[in-house]
Amino acid sequence: MPTSTETAPNAADYPADVLAVLPLLYVAWADGVITPAEHTTLRKRLQAFDWMDPEHRDAVQQWLDPEHPPTPTEYQRWRRRLQKAATDLPVTGRTSLAALGAEMAALGGDGAPGMPDDAQQALREVEAALGIAGDEIVDELRGERPAPSDEVPCGIPCQVEQLQRYLDGEHAELRDQIRALLTDPVFRYDPSLGTEAKRERVLYWCRLLADQGLGALAFPKKHGGTGDISKFITAFETLSYHDLSLVIKFGVQFGLFGGSVHQLGSARHHEKYLEDIGTLELPGCFAMSELGHGSNVRDLETTAHYDTETEEFVINTPHNGARKEWIGNAARHGRVATVFAQLHTNGEDYGVHAFIVPIRDDAGTPKPRVRIEDCGRKMGLNGVDNGRLWFDHVRIPRENLLNRYADVHADGTYESDIPSAGRRFFTMLSTLVGGRISVARSACSAAKSGLTIAVRYGNRRRQFGPQDEPEVPILDYRTHQRRLLPRLAKTYAIHAALAHLTNEFAARGPNDSLEDIEAEANALKAYSTWHTTDVLQTAREACGGQGYLAENRIAALKADTDVYTTFEGDNTVLLLQVAKGLLSDFQREFRDMNVFNMVQFVASDLGTRLKEKNPLIRRNTDREHLRDPEFHGNAFRYRSEALLQSVARRLKKRIDDGMDTYDAFIEVQDHLVTLAKAKSEQLVFDHFHASIQDTEDDDLRGVLRTLCTLFALEAIESDRGWFLEQNYIEGSKAKAIRHEVNALCKEVRPMAEPLVDAFAIPNACLHAPIAQKQQTETA
Amino acid sequence: MPTSTETAPNAADYPADVLAVLPLLYVAWADGVITPAEHTTLRKRLQAFDWMDPEHRDAVQQWLDPEHPPTPTEYQRWRRRLQKAATDLPVTGRTSLAALGAEMAALGGDGAPGMPDDAQQALREVEAALGIAGDEIVDELRGERPAPSDEVPCGIPCQVEQLQRYLDGEHAELRDQIRALLTDPVFRYDPSLGTEAKRERVLYWCRLLADQGLGALAFPKKHGGTGDISKFITAFETLSYHDLSLVIKFGVQFGLFGGSVHQLGSARHHEKYLEDIGTLELPGCFAMSELGHGSNVRDLETTAHYDTETEEFVINTPHNGARKEWIGNAARHGRVATVFAQLHTNGEDYGVHAFIVPIRDDAGTPKPRVRIEDCGRKMGLNGVDNGRLWFDHVRIPRENLLNRYADVHADGTYESDIPSAGRRFFTMLSTLVGGRISVARSACSAAKSGLTIAVRYGNRRRQFGPQDEPEVPILDYRTHQRRLLPRLAKTYAIHAALAHLTNEFAARGPNDSLEDIEAEANALKAYSTWHTTDVLQTAREACGGQGYLAENRIAALKADTDVYTTFEGDNTVLLLQVAKGLLSDFQREFRDMNVFNMVQFVASDLGTRLKEKNPLIRRNTDREHLRDPEFHGNAFRYRSEALLQSVARRLKKRIDDGMDTYDAFIEVQDHLVTLAKAKSEQLVFDHFHASIQDTEDDDLRGVLRTLCTLFALEAIESDRGWFLEQNYIEGSKAKAIRHEVNALCKEVRPMAEPLVDAFAIPNACLHAPIAQKQQTETA
Repeated sequence: MPTSTETAPNAADYPADVLAVLPLLYVAWADGVITPAEHTTLRKRLQAFDWMDPEHRDAVQQWLDPEHPPTPTEYQRWRRRLQKAATDLPVTGRTSLAALGAEMAALGGDGAPGMPDDAQQALREVEAALGIAGDEIVDELRGERPAPSDEVPCGIPCQVEQLQRYLDGEHAELRDQIRALLTDPVFRYDPSLGTEAKRERVLYWCRLLADQGLGALAFPKKHGGTGDISKFITAFETLSYHDLSLVIKFGVQFGLFGGSVHQLGSARHHEKYLEDIGTLELPGCFAMSELGHGSNVRDLETTAHYDTETEEFVINTPHNGARKEWIGNAARHGRVATVFAQLHTNGEDYGVHAFIVPIRDDAGTPKPRVRIEDCGRKMGLNGVDNGRLWFDHVRIPRENLLNRYADVHADGTYESDIPSAGRRFFTMLSTLVGGRISVARSACSAAKSGLTIAVRYGNRRRQFGPQDEPEVPILDYRTHQRRLLPRLAKTYAIHAALAHLTNEFAARGPNDSLEDIEAEANALKAYSTWHTTDVLQTAREACGGQGYLAENRIAALKADTDVYTTFEGDNTVLLLQVAKGLLSDFQREFRDMNVFNMVQFVASDLGTRLKEKNPLIRRNTDREHLRDPEFHGNAFRYRSEALLQSVARRLKKRIDDGMDTYDAFIEVQDHLVTLAKAKSEQLVFDHFHASIQDTEDDDLRGVLRTLCTLFALEAIESDRGWFLEQNYIEGSKAKAIRHEVNALCKEVRPMAEPLVDAFAIPNACLHAPIAQKQQTETA
Repeated sequence: MPTSTETAPNAADYPADVLAVLPLLYVAWADGVITPAEHTTLRKRLQAFDWMDPEHRDAVQQWLDPEHPPTPTEYQRWRRRLQKAATDLPVTGRTSLAALGAEMAALGGDGAPGMPDDAQQALREVEAALGIAGDEIVDELRGERPAPSDEVPCGIPCQVEQLQRYLDGEHAELRDQIRALLTDPVFRYDPSLGTEAKRERVLYWCRLLADQGLGALAFPKKHGGTGDISKFITAFETLSYHDLSLVIKFGVQFGLFGGSVHQLGSARHHEKYLEDIGTLELPGCFAMSELGHGSNVRDLETTAHYDTETEEFVINTPHNGARKEWIGNAARHGRVATVFAQLHTNGEDYGVHAFIVPIRDDAGTPKPRVRIEDCGRKMGLNGVDNGRLWFDHVRIPRENLLNRYADVHADGTYESDIPSAGRRFFTMLSTLVGGRISVARSACSAAKSGLTIAVRYGNRRRQFGPQDEPEVPILDYRTHQRRLLPRLAKTYAIHAALAHLTNEFAARGPNDSLEDIEAEANALKAYSTWHTTDVLQTAREACGGQGYLAENRIAALKADTDVYTTFEGDNTVLLLQVAKGLLSDFQREFRDMNVFNMVQFVASDLGTRLKEKNPLIRRNTDREHLRDPEFHGNAFRYRSEALLQSVARRLKKRIDDGMDTYDAFIEVQDHLVTLAKAKSEQLVFDHFHASIQDTEDDDLRGVLRTLCTLFALEAIESDRGWFLEQNYIEGSKAKAIRHEVNALCKEVRPMAEPLVDAFAIPNACLHAPIAQKQQTETA
C-alpha cells in the first residue's frame, strides 16, 4: 500500500479496508472540521477496528499523527479518490461518510474482500460521535460547481405596466415627456466637468426645461403656465431621476424664487416678473436663510427700513451673522433675489417680509452695495451655485415689497389683514409649502434610483452558494433581502403618501388654510428624506466595491441627497413642529376638562377606540391576523395616540410642578420626536392603504397589498421595543412578526426586479453599468 | 380713547379699564394662541364685564370682531404698552395676564380709577377657561433677547491630559511624533488638486512617512523596522486623523503588500524586498480580489501553473471575471504585486498561494503581458490609485512563490505541513489579520474627527431659546445630546476594545494560532466601521448646512470611510463568519450529548450562569442597579448566549427535518447576523469595562465609568425589543432605562468638549473652520 511519503499521482489504489476509513482520514485533515482533541479520539477508535489488516491499521494511525501529517499531494490523492467514489454514489437521500467508505471498499480496492456489516456500524458511530455532517462532505466532494446561467429569477402576478400606471398617476403623459427629454444626448452626464463648467451645464439644462414650458407649470396660464402646482411637483419628481443638481437648480429658480413672486406678490409683480422667471430670462434667488438664522428664520436680522422721503426700502445686513447664506443661484447666475427682511416703517418693526432686490446687472456684475461670495465646494449638488449675500443699505422702490399679505403706503402707513407679525410671517411661509413637498418627492425618486441599481445588481451578482451548485445571486440571501426588500416596500408606501399629499395641496383654494397640509408636509418631508439617506447607504453597501465606484452613480445620489434632511427645514426641527401641532390640537380638545375628566376620557377613549389592546389580540400570531391591514392601522394609530397622551401628561406634570414651559419641552424633546415619527408612519400607512383600496385590478391590488404588509410589519418589527414596552404585543407575537417579515421577503424576492422596473427610470438617467437593463428604452 | 384706526404711535394712553383687558386682546390676535371659537367665547365673557365703562367695552368688543381686526400698527402699540408693563412687573414667581392687566390699570391708565377685585377674578377665570399660559406670554413680552456670551458650557471631573494618556496608551510618544509631523505645512490639505495630482501628493506624503521610519515599523529590526506590529497599528490609527487617502495608501504599501511579503514569505524574500518596501523604494500591490470573487476569495480564478522545464510559474487571468479588481497602488505607482492565484503543479491544484509578480519596469511602464487599467473615480479615497490587473501567461521564477506555508521544489514536488488546501489558505489569510484591525482603528479615528467637529459646533452654534434669554447652544437640546453623546461614549468603548485586541494580537508568537484573534477582529471590524458610518452621518446632520460644506471636512470623512464597511471583508460576510465560528465552538461543546441532555444543559446553564432573568431583577428600576456594570455585562452575555442557543436549535430542527445545511443556514442568516452583532457588542463592553477597572486615577475612572454606563444602557435601550421579547426586562424597566440614558446625556453634556479634546486631533488635521479650537496647538 502507498505510504505517507508516496507522491506519485498514479500509484495503485488503496486496499479495501483503507478505502473504508479514507473518508474519515480526509475529514480529519480538512478545514478544521474536527478538533485536535477529536483527532485523538479518532485514533483511539481506529485502534479497535479489528476488521482491518493490522499493518494497514498501523499505517492509517501514522497518517493521523499530528507530528506527521499527510503530504498535500497524498491528501489531494485521497480527495480525488473520494471525489470519484462520491460521484458514482446514488444521489438520492442523505449519505454518510461510512456509507461512502463501504461503497468504496466494495467497488474498488486493491483486491481485498468487502467489509463486514459491523465495520460499517462502527464507522457510523465514529461519524456520529465526532458530529460530522457526512452528507455535506459527500456533497462537496461530488461536484465541480457548474457555471451559472444568466437567467435571473423573476416573477410577479401583475404587469409591470400596471404598476407603472399606478405610480405615474394622472400626469403619466407629462412624466413620459420628461423621461424622453432626459434621454436626449444633450442631457448625458459628463463627469469630467469642473465646478464652474458643471454650473453652466446645469443652467443650460434648466433653460432647455424652461423651453419645454416645465419651469412655468405652476404659474397662471396668462403668464405662460398651466396653473397646476401638481404638474410642477410631478415634473420635479420625475426630473429627480436625473442629476440632482439639475432639479435643485430648477427648484430654486421656478419653485422658490418663482413661487415667492407668485405666492407672496400681487398682480403688479406677476405681470412684471412671472413670464421672465418661467422662461429663465430672469434668473433669481430665494434669500431667506442667514448664517446666524437657518432654522429660526422668524428672528432673522436683515432689515428693510422704509424711507418716506424717497418712497424706497433700504435693505441692510447689520452684521456678518446676518448675511444671507446658502442661497442657490446667488454665486453665479441670479439677477434678482427675493430677500426676507424685518420691515420697519414709521418707527415700528412689523416682522419679516419679502422684497425683490436686484443683485446683478444684465452683464452679471454685482450691483453696487451688494456683496456676493461663493459658498465653495459642497459634499454634493456642485452644479448649484450657492452663495452668500450682504446688503449695504441697498435702496429699492416701495413697489418691490411682495405685498399679497401686507403693504406699505407711500406715506409709510402699514396695512395688513393680519395683526400679529408672527402669524403674518407663518401665513406667508405656508404658501411655500410646495417646496417641502417637492423635496420629499425628489428624495423618493433618488431612493428609487438607488433601489433600482441595488436590486438589479443583487439579482445578477453571484457569490458563494451550495457546494455542488452554481454560485447564487446575492439577492437570494436572506440578509440581502432583509436589506433591500422592506426598503423597496417602504418606498412604494412613501410614494403613495406623497402623491396623496400633493393632490390635497393642489386641490386647496387660494384662501384656504394650509395648516394641516403644512403639518403633513413637515412630517412626510422628514420621513421621506431620512428614508432616502438610509436607502442609499444600504444600496451602496449592498453593491459592495461596485457601489463605491463613481460610475455606478450611488456616490452622487448619496452626496447630492445628503442635505435633503437639512434644507427646506431641518428634519428634527420639522418633527418638533409636527409634535407641537399635535399637542396644540390635543390641548384644545381637552381645554375645558379638568385633570380628572381628562384622565377618565383618556382611559375610556383608549378602551373604546383601540380595541386591539386585549390579551387575545396581543398574543394572536395567526398569519391571517398578522397580515390584516386592520391590525397594522390600529397599531400605528394606537402608537401615535398613546405617545401624544403620554407626552401631554409628562408636560403637564412638569408645568404643574413649576417648571418653565420651555424647559419642560426640552425635557420631553426626544419624546416629541418619537411622537412625530410615529405620526408620520401612520400617515404613510393610511395613505398607502387607502390608495390600494382604490385600486381596481385584482392582480395589481394583490401585489400592492403584499408590499403594504411588508412595509407595515417591518415598521412594527423595527419598533417592537415600543409595542412590547406598552404591552401592546407579547414576545411571542414579536417573534411571529419577525418570521412573517422573513416570509414576506421571500415572497417579494422574485418580484423585486419588476417592482423597480415599474419606476421606469431611463437607462440614461440611471447610468450605472451594473444596473443597465437589457431592454429597448421606451421613454 | 384711541380707535382701531388710530395710527399715531404717541397717542395718549388707554383708559385703566381698557388696560386691564389689553393683555387678553393682545393674546386673542397673537399667533394662533386661541382659536376662532374661543374668540367668540371671549367676546361673550367681556360682555359681562360691568366694571368697564360701557363705551370702552363696546370699543373693545369691536376690536374682537374677526371681520375688523386691529391694524398691525394698533397691535404693535398694544404690544409696546404691554412690554413696558411687563418689564416693570416684579420678576419673581409666575404672572398671569390678569395680574398684568390689573397692574397696568393701577399704575398707568388715562386717569381712570383702579379696578375692582372681582374684576381681577373675572379676568383670571377667562384666562383659565381659554387655557392661556399667561406667564409665558408675560415672559415673552418682558425682554428683548440679550446677546449670548461666547462662553461655552464645560466641566469635567478629570484632566483632559489624563483622558488623553488613557487613550494614547503605551505608544504615546509615537502618536505625538505623528501628530507633530502631520501639523507640518507640507501635509496641508489642498482641495484644488485633481485626481492625478492628488495621487502624486499622497505618494509624496507616504515617502515622507517612510523617511521617518513609519512604514517599516512592523518589519524585523534587521530590515529597518522595530518588529512591533502594535506600533504600526498605532501609527495607522493616528495617521487616520489626516486625509484618509494617505492612510489607505500607507496601508496598501506597508501593511498589505509589505505584510504579505513579511508574513507569507521566507528569509529570501525578506532580504530581497523588505527594506525597499519600508523605504518605498519598491512600491507594490496586494492583488487578491477579483471582479468575480471579492468575498469568496478561496474560489478566485487566477492560475499559477508550475513549469518544470524552466522552473517558472506561469501567472494567468483565464477570463475577464478573474481580473484583479480594486487593487490599490496598481493604477499608477506599483512596481510589483503580491498576486494570489491557484497553484498547479504536477497536474494537481493545491489551492490559493501568493506570488511576487513584477507589473511595471523602473520607468513605470507596464511589463509585457501585464494589462493595467484604472478603476476611475470613486466616492472617496481618490488619492489612492486603485486599478485592475490582467496577466497573460506571465512567467516568474519559482522563488517568487511566498513560501512560508508551502513550497514547490525545482522538480515540481509540492511541500507543506498543512495537508488541506482550504486550511492552508485560511492559515495564510489569518496572518494578515493586522490589516483588519488597522481598518477598524482607522474607522475609529474618523469617528473621533467627526465627533470633534460636531461637538464643538454644537457647543457654539446657537439657535432658538427661551423668550427672555439668549439663544442657546444646540448641544443643550435633548435631541442634539441624544444624537451625539451616546455615540461619543460608544467611540470611547470601541477605542478601548480595539486597543485590547491590538495588544493581544501583538503578543502572539509567530507560530501561535490566530483563530480567536481573527474572530474578534472580524467582529470588531464590522462593529467599528458601521459605527463610523453612523457617526459621520449623524455628525453631518448635526452640523446642518455647515456640515455639508466641503471645507468643514465631514463630506470627505464620510466619502472616504464609506467603503470601510466593504473592504478588508464585507461586514455582513465577516459577521456570518463570526456566527459560524461561535456555532462550531458550541457544536463541539455539545457534540457528545444527545438532544435531551442538551436541552437540559441549556436550561440549567441559563438558570445558573445568568441569574439576571428573575422577576425581581426584571423589574428593578433603581438607578443604582441600572448603572451597575454587572447588570450590563450580564445582559450582553445573556443575549449572546441565548441567541447562540436559539439559532443552534433552529438549525438543528431544520437539518433534522431533512433540510440541506446550506438552505438551513440561509434561512437563519438574519439570526446569525444578530448573534454576531450581539457578540461584538459584548466584546466591546467587556474590554472597555476591563480597561476601566485597570484605571488607577479615581477621577478618570469616574468619567470613564459614566461613559461606559451611557454606552451600555443606550445599547440595551436600542435593542430593548429583544430584551423585552425574551422577557429579560419588563416594560417599566425599559422606560426607566430610557430615562436613565437621558439623565446620563445631561451629565455627559458639559464633559462633551473635553472628551473630544482628549482625542488630541491637530487643528491642521481637523481643518474644519467650525471646529477650530482657540488654543496653542501643542502637537
